[in-house]
Amino acid sequence: MSSSIGTAPLSLPAIRARVDAEVAAFVAQRRPTLEAISPDLADLLDIVSDGVSGGKRLRAAFVCVGWAGAGGQECDEVYRAAAAMEFLQACALIHDDIMDGSDSRRGLPSAHRRFGDIHRGQTWHGSAEQFGAGGAILAGDLCLSWADEALLTCGLEAQSLARAKPAFDSMRAELMAGQYLDLVEQARGGGDVQRARTVVSYKSARYTIARPLEIGGLLAAADSALLSAYQRYGLRLGEAFQLRDDVLGVFGDSAQTGKPVGDDLREGKQTLLIAATMQLAGPEDADLMRENLGRNDLDASRIERMQQVISESGALAQIEALIASGRDEALEACASVPEPAAGALRELAVAATSRRA
Amino acid sequence: MSSSIGTAPLSLPAIRARVDAEVAAFVAQRRPTLEAISPDLADLLDIVSDGVSGGKRLRAAFVCVGWAGAGGQECDEVYRAAAAMEFLQACALIHDDIMDGSDSRRGLPSAHRRFGDIHRGQTWHGSAEQFGAGGAILAGDLCLSWADEALLTCGLEAQSLARAKPAFDSMRAELMAGQYLDLVEQARGGGDVQRARTVVSYKSARYTIARPLEIGGLLAAADSALLSAYQRYGLRLGEAFQLRDDVLGVFGDSAQTGKPVGDDLREGKQTLLIAATMQLAGPEDADLMRENLGRNDLDASRIERMQQVISESGALAQIEALIASGRDEALEACASVPEPAAGALRELAVAATSRRA
Repeated sequence: MSSSIGTAPLSLPAIRARVDAEVAAFVAQRRPTLEAISPDLADLLDIVSDGVSGGKRLRAAFVCVGWAGAGGQECDEVYRAAAAMEFLQACALIHDDIMDGSDSRRGLPSAHRRFGDIHRGQTWHGSAEQFGAGGAILAGDLCLSWADEALLTCGLEAQSLARAKPAFDSMRAELMAGQYLDLVEQARGGGDVQRARTVVSYKSARYTIARPLEIGGLLAAADSALLSAYQRYGLRLGEAFQLRDDVLGVFGDSAQTGKPVGDDLREGKQTLLIAATMQLAGPEDADLMRENLGRNDLDASRIERMQQVISESGALAQIEALIASGRDEALEACASVPEPAAGALRELAVAATSRRA
Repeated sequence: MSSSIGTAPLSLPAIRARVDAEVAAFVAQRRPTLEAISPDLADLLDIVSDGVSGGKRLRAAFVCVGWAGAGGQECDEVYRAAAAMEFLQACALIHDDIMDGSDSRRGLPSAHRRFGDIHRGQTWHGSAEQFGAGGAILAGDLCLSWADEALLTCGLEAQSLARAKPAFDSMRAELMAGQYLDLVEQARGGGDVQRARTVVSYKSARYTIARPLEIGGLLAAADSALLSAYQRYGLRLGEAFQLRDDVLGVFGDSAQTGKPVGDDLREGKQTLLIAATMQLAGPEDADLMRENLGRNDLDASRIERMQQVISESGALAQIEALIASGRDEALEACASVPEPAAGALRELAVAATSRRA
């Protein structure tokens, strides 16, 4: 790929490598101060450090591309600002895993499980589960605190930071709001397509794409025409990105996703894919879905049967069509973005919607 | 009291009133944007709003006094900056109540209980407890996000904010670290006086007093002599403040503390007061403590008996002596602080150590 920020390539792997390095450097810089307080903090730091490692770094990439599209030159500072997104994301994942009771994340034990295991490995008092949840709440809080610290200490000019900080503030509040609305929808048992789309818009589209692009743009003083192209791209691609996630949660290959096949079915996740299935499936199939969604003991054959219902009802095709139209509208918005950022956005649009993990 | 910031009194009630108003205004300003996303967010906002209401506003007060001592003039902006501390504190309390499984806070149901009750009031799916914890994790995350937003949008000059932000960053990280060390100590069953004092230093002394004073001072460009007087005052008074908390957790009047009598004994909290009791009590009394600490079903007569052991062992007197010496050393540090801030610090030192709630 030939797109670049200044001389650096704008490809996702190249950005990921730089962001990984900045994230690791940020944690490494703070580790000695905290470990000097007490050696017991090494566990907290290790789990935070692993929590911010890995991942696709999509949010960071959108900051970098948003910056480049607005004429920002390649520099260490922008990768540091981009790293801020990944601390926020680490908080979201660590806290989300507690809320969902998820035991694994990217194929490894989730943070609350790791803290729980530390407790189990000692002759300690109290419940290992409660210690695990407590440790993970604090690990997430530390990541959340480090997110704005990473942004504001990235070394870009104060003016740049002052432009971007309000968008970062909105991004955080929208994330918490979207997550809360998701909790409510799951509790309600879903079924309302409009409410499901609101959750997707706030929890995913704005949070994953629109706001990071905007933040990158604002850091480099993007004009309002560019910011509005970023927003169109972000909201449409963001929805498509989440819908791909929902499809992977049902049909994904566990070797690639790092999660058991059909995990979303076992969790009973109320997604647009499920809402569409309930609308389109015949009464017997709809009953089968209702009876089995959210059952922890679903076996492989039952999951296969549910996948069949989702597919044969036409819901899967409907969602795939939404993904394709979201991707296409996002690609159209790229026409208002200068090269080489537009090229990078096009590649990211394809990657985000055709990924397998 | 005659101390003042500019023309405004530096008394705790006067500061509290101004900070309460700024906290409420901050939330009110953000409410319409969030409620426009979905009416379901009203519950989240109500619980966050109640979570940041009330309280002693000690941390905010120390920011205001730190500011005044460094020559800062009274202005709305500093009360807004001070309000930031209260958002951080609201996050700490909401998340702490989840970790401890505490059902009440300031005499009202805790945040996770309130979210759980919302779930119970509907015919919703899943566990009300899990929904309650999830909602409260997000409510705390929103408070934590709003803390630095309140600080950085307070309206003080960028230079002032740039001086204070690193201290604010340290304050947050030390809080999370201190809370984690406290979790570990509780799990270990306490008993190590040195480790218990480290917890007190980070979770309480720096967080409640030393850092807020420093932040107020840095906002007003305090010199290093003043900052070091603030630190001496903060660390010593901060320890005394926490020890008073520990005494109130065992001996406090529930009508005043808003918590059941002997709550810390039922929770089995490992405090310096308990560590001292275990050192000083005879073997029979120590056994009695060990057998009963952390039992949820402690009745009034058993709690009275444990109070007697703590008192008759000499541990209570030892801790009261530590409180008094901490307060006295803090009062001595005030000699290096200009009036009227020094007068306010002296009053706060007495209030923080002789309070009943």
